[in-house]
Order: sequence, then structure tokens, then C-alpha cells
Amino acid sequence: MNIEQKLQELNITLPNISAPAASYVMVNQTGNLLFISGHLAKKDGMVWVGKLGENLTTAEGKQAARLIAIDLIATLKQHLGNLDKVKKIVKVMSLVNSSSSFTEQHLVTNGCSELLVQVFGDNGKHARSAFGVSQIPLGACVEIEMIVEI
Amino acid sequence: MNIEQKLQELNITLPNISAPAASYVMVNQTGNLLFISGHLAKKDGMVWVGKLGENLTTAEGKQAARLIAIDLIATLKQHLGNLDKVKKIVKVMSLVNSSSSFTEQHLVTNGCSELLVQVFGDNGKHARSAFGVSQIPLGACVEIEMIVEI
Amino acid sequence: MNIEQKLQELNITLPNISAPAASYVMVNQTGNLLFISGHLAKKDGMVWVGKLGENLTTAEGKQAARLIAIDLIATLKQHLGNLDKVKKIVKVMSLVNSSSSFTEQHLVTNGCSELLVQVFGDNGKHARSAFGVSQIPLGACVEIEMIVEI
Repeated sequence: MNIEQKLQELNITLPNISAPAASYVMVNQTGNLLFISGHLAKKDGMVWVGKLGENLTTAEGKQAARLIAIDLIATLKQHLGNLDKVKKIVKVMSLVNSSSSFTEQHLVTNGCSELLVQVFGDNGKHARSAFGVSQIPLGACVEIEMIVEI
Repeated sequence: MNIEQKLQELNITLPNISAPAASYVMVNQTGNLLFISGHLAKKDGMVWVGKLGENLTTAEGKQAARLIAIDLIATLKQHLGNLDKVKKIVKVMSLVNSSSSFTEQHLVTNGCSELLVQVFGDNGKHARSAFGVSQIPLGACVEIEMIVEI
Repeated sequence: MNIEQKLQELNITLPNISAPAASYVMVNQTGNLLFISGHLAKKDGMVWVGKLGENLTTAEGKQAARLIAIDLIATLKQHLGNLDKVKKIVKVMSLVNSSSSFTEQHLVTNGCSELLVQVFGDNGKHARSAFGVSQIPLGACVEIEMIVEI
């Protein structure tokens, strides 16, 4: 089964990802590596604002991370045309907007990690770091960047 | 126009970057990639101390990020000798010393991104992540690291 | 002298690193680069909980970073079999669980950087970023990830 069929099976429709407003790009290729810019959590097309340990539950954070994973795949699709060109997901860095006492960034980030493995199988298994940050642009609850090998 | 001429046109003089005190290096090459260590914001040769959302404005933070970009280019120049060896700026990670409610890390980071594009043109367009951190070594207001392809 | 002999000389015994519980891996290889997932500080096999600037001293944080470096080397050993395959330590990212006023993340991180150079010599000299984060999974005081060339 190819990746598009896998997405269909999971009932996932890829959104359109708009180009950044500033002097940077969503994807930058060097050799056979793609560096994908940090993607902010969105819900219904708007930035999903919130802070874990303050006004969002771990379950909501995990859902936000899952939605970011879908956006990251959408960015990959726009860049590559064909998602079957993905050889492996190399690395994920997950930034969780956290109060100074919230310690479940790993559970939040699983929302992203689990979707990547559902979609890409063993090639979706990645190295990762997850940690709590004091804020994120526009107040987003989670931001995730990714390195992909094609 | 080469990069040195571009810097001159922009009235930018590259400072001397001192070697780190500890067991690390400012630039490390692997293959044709240069990993550049996090550079702290400086003003008049001193660490620029402050926290966005507390005692620095977004405009000041943006200026700090611009100055870091100049320091990053200075580090590149010291390492490469000739800045025309830069093939592209691959990735920028920008850490903004932020209160728990400051949400304009992207605007701060534009100070770096815009300068990189002014200097390197299309080759300066990079993937990036920007987010708020609870503190930075020596209290610096911004810290930025970079990956460059040569 | 090879790396195993060097570890013996430093009286370092490598622990067993358990596989992650979730959909990610401790090491992911792309080309001749190994991306190693963020490792949490541990003490006597348990997560070393704490926050710098609140309930841990810089010296304790530095010791935590040194112990993480040993765990990172243990992960490398499990992946590579033979540590002499390490060509260089490319990059370290060190996240220090910090109060909003603690500014010695660089001194904490030296605990990792110094050990890497003790063990790998000049090949252990790496690019690095160190900064303060608002929290870390399970409340760990330090988390460090690494990129290695083999």
C-alpha cells in the first residue's frame, strides 16, 4: 500500500499549507535531507492557542501534536508531489508550550510520533526530542519541526 | 556581486568572534554541512541581557537577532575564509528569552532571517524554528544556531 | 588507545539503555550521520528530577549532564557495537530545566561537553547549543540530544 492509500485508510485529508510570510521557507533540501520548519498547532485552520499545565489537557496537547503531524505530511506532499519518495522520517523536535510544572511533553509528542508510524510504518520511526518551552509564536500550544530523508 | 561586496553595500563590518571557552567549537563540519553553535545576542561587544515580554520590546529583540546573524556570518567567514563558499543557509533555530506570555518570537527571529536573505539572496532562504525559552546562558535575550551547506 | 580502553581508564561503566516506550527510536541513521534522541538525566537508574535555579545547584546540573553524556555513549555502543566507529561528535543540544532567572546553562552543559572530549579527544569537540527550558518530560533536570558522524 502506498502512502496516499494509507492516508485514505486513516481518513486523513491533507490541508493546504500556506507559504511563510517572512524570509524563510517551509522545506529546505540539502543532499537527500529535507529540513522542515517548525509547524504551529492549528485547529479548524486557526492557531491552536494554549499552554499545557495551565489551560489544556495532555489529551488535547496530544491531539494538537497529531494535527501538526498531518500538516507536516501536507508540507512534504506539496514539496515532493509524491509521498512515496519519503525514505524515512529521521528526526522530530517537539516544543510543548508548558507551565513550569507540566512534565508530560513526551505524552503530548506521542500524538505526532504515533501518526508518523501509522502512515509511514517502520520508515516513520524517528529519533526525537520533546521538551517544554515558555512560549511559542502566536501562542500556539505545540510546535514541531522534522528532518526527512528522501 | 559577491558576498563581501554585499556586506559592504549593507554597511556591515564583521566582528571578530572569539573561540569558546569550553570543550566545544563554534563550527563543526560533516560532509558539506556546517553546524554552527548557538550564538548569544551581543551589543557593543557585551552579552545583550534581557527577556522579551518583560524588559525588552519586540523591536529590540529583532535588532538583537539581526546582530546575531552578523555574528553567525562572521563565524562562517573565520571558518571558510571566503563567504562565497556558502551554497545555502539550510536551517536556523532561534531561541528567544521569553516571559510565559510573550508570543512574538517569529517577529524577533525575522531580524535574523531578513538579514540572511539580504546577504545571501535566494541561497539565504532557510527552514527555521523559533520559540520562547525560559532562559539563555548569561541572560542573553536571543540565541541562534544555524546549519549551512557549502 | 581505543575508546573502550579510554572509558576504562576514566572508570566509566556504560549502563544498559532501554528502548523507548513510544513510536520512536533512540538512534536513527541517515547516510553516515546518527541522530540520537534526547536523553533524560538519570541518577541510580531513576530520572533525576529538578529545576536549576530552584532546587538544584549548577554543580549538580553539571554532574547530571556528565551522566547523560555517559548514557549517550552507551546508546552509541548499543547501536554501533564498536565505539571506534565514531568519526566525530558533530552537535550537541542541551536543554536545562531552568527557572526564569537561572543563566548558567553553559556551565551545566560543560559536564557533557568535557566528558565527550575526555573520551573521544579532538573528535569529541562538537558544535553545541545550550539553553533553559520551562520543563522536561518526567521533570528531568537536563535533556541532551546529539548528532554523530560515523
